[in-house]
Amino acid sequence: MSLGPGFPDYIIPRAQNVLYEAQVIMGYRTYIELLEPLLAHQEVVASSMKAEVSRCQEAIARAQEGQRVALVSSGDAGIYGMAGLVLEICAAQNLRVAPPPGEGEVDFYLEVVPGIPALAAGAALLGAPLMHDFASISLSDLLTPWETIVQRLELAAQGDFVIVLYNPKSKKRHWQLGAVRDLLLHCKGPQTPVGIVSRAMRQGQEIIISTLEDFLEHPVDMQTVIIVGNSQTFAYGPYMVTPRGYLAKYRLTEESPAAAG
Amino acid sequence: MSLGPGFPDYIIPRAQNVLYEAQVIMGYRTYIELLEPLLAHQEVVASSMKAEVSRCQEAIARAQEGQRVALVSSGDAGIYGMAGLVLEICAAQNLRVAPPPGEGEVDFYLEVVPGIPALAAGAALLGAPLMHDFASISLSDLLTPWETIVQRLELAAQGDFVIVLYNPKSKKRHWQLGAVRDLLLHCKGPQTPVGIVSRAMRQGQEIIISTLEDFLEHPVDMQTVIIVGNSQTFAYGPYMVTPRGYLAKYRLTEESPAAAG
Repeated sequence: MSLGPGFPDYIIPRAQNVLYEAQVIMGYRTYIELLEPLLAHQEVVASSMKAEVSRCQEAIARAQEGQRVALVSSGDAGIYGMAGLVLEICAAQNLRVAPPPGEGEVDFYLEVVPGIPALAAGAALLGAPLMHDFASISLSDLLTPWETIVQRLELAAQGDFVIVLYNPKSKKRHWQLGAVRDLLLHCKGPQTPVGIVSRAMRQGQEIIISTLEDFLEHPVDMQTVIIVGNSQTFAYGPYMVTPRGYLAKYRLTEESPAAAG
Repeated sequence: MSLGPGFPDYIIPRAQNVLYEAQVIMGYRTYIELLEPLLAHQEVVASSMKAEVSRCQEAIARAQEGQRVALVSSGDAGIYGMAGLVLEICAAQNLRVAPPPGEGEVDFYLEVVPGIPALAAGAALLGAPLMHDFASISLSDLLTPWETIVQRLELAAQGDFVIVLYNPKSKKRHWQLGAVRDLLLHCKGPQTPVGIVSRAMRQGQEIIISTLEDFLEHPVDMQTVIIVGNSQTFAYGPYMVTPRGYLAKYRLTEESPAAAG
């Protein structure tokens, strides 16, 4: 299940109920600590960030024993979160799982509870950068070859997609963002707006609107989402806006909205 | 502000507060009707689907007069929703707007309240199709030339992105999905899983997992989101799963997860 970006104002009621009704709550230590105010009777199993696979395996084993387990992801469990790994392991173990309420025999019921994804939280804080077609790309090369990531960035830039970058930097990956910038500059102008949001709706929130040319000047870490505009995206005061095309179509103004920024 | 996919279990507390504190609630009639149980003192201005521009203009005019206006979008206002149009109009009118609490003089404060986007709601109901890089593409050619849409579909397919299709069909656009299928079949296999979710978390919800070859057999409308898998995506019982690569990396199983489907 998904916590969304911030707690408790940005978590959906369905997720709150799941946490409340759980017998066991499992997750990465940092997120579990955020839940402290909500915890009462539940057993809590906090683990380190590297322990994703064993955490999911234990959650599945406990669910097979009949326990009500809430496995938490921040943001949305379905976007680079835990939902896929759980289902991968279930499939590899040939378990019979189904969403509740199901018909027929199952090993356990599994509900994926969505949350506000980091890309939507970041977009809301930036204004409206995702109003047109976009591509979401993770820069983590732990599980994906760097060549694949580069190819996707090139194709997304060619298609004039707005580009959302997840996992833009880690302790070991400090050279990538420079490479990404150079690569995107082949297709996108140096003044293309770039939004940088760290710790959206949480303590330490930071919102920066920069440009493709200059965005490397700003601090970025694993809790940052970066949104690179398309050819129409403009900066407007504290906002970053990708027009959908209504104004051009309905000719409400003599000036193009892109010119306003 | 954003209603999310379903009401009231999938709307965030921040959005509920905004609705509660509003003096005026404006939006498309169908969504406003869903809010009935929550309405009390607020003035309600419901309008037709075609009236987006005039609805935003009226919301802005009322905000300039000092009214607390909640302009509602279903799903997430920041993904093909109303947030961008409001900011486009404000920019064209040279208004000074800023997120609350702001410093300096403004014409009014503007907060974009996120919601669970249709793509995240659909993904949760399908299992975990968005666990790897994806592209979101709207098939509506009202504001975007069809050639641009086709080019984006081709590039996304070349990059082996999972592809989310918004606005897959309208009364006037019945021929497009067939063209999209044929085009995607150039890069993706006929057995590629395709998830079809209509009215996620609302009355009349439908969830179908089909294949690229066969998905045209199933009903689709403007309240449908379609998710086309990447080359690794597999169907697993009632779920559609795009692996992130953990199991391949950690070699937890002799069998590839893709073979399980």
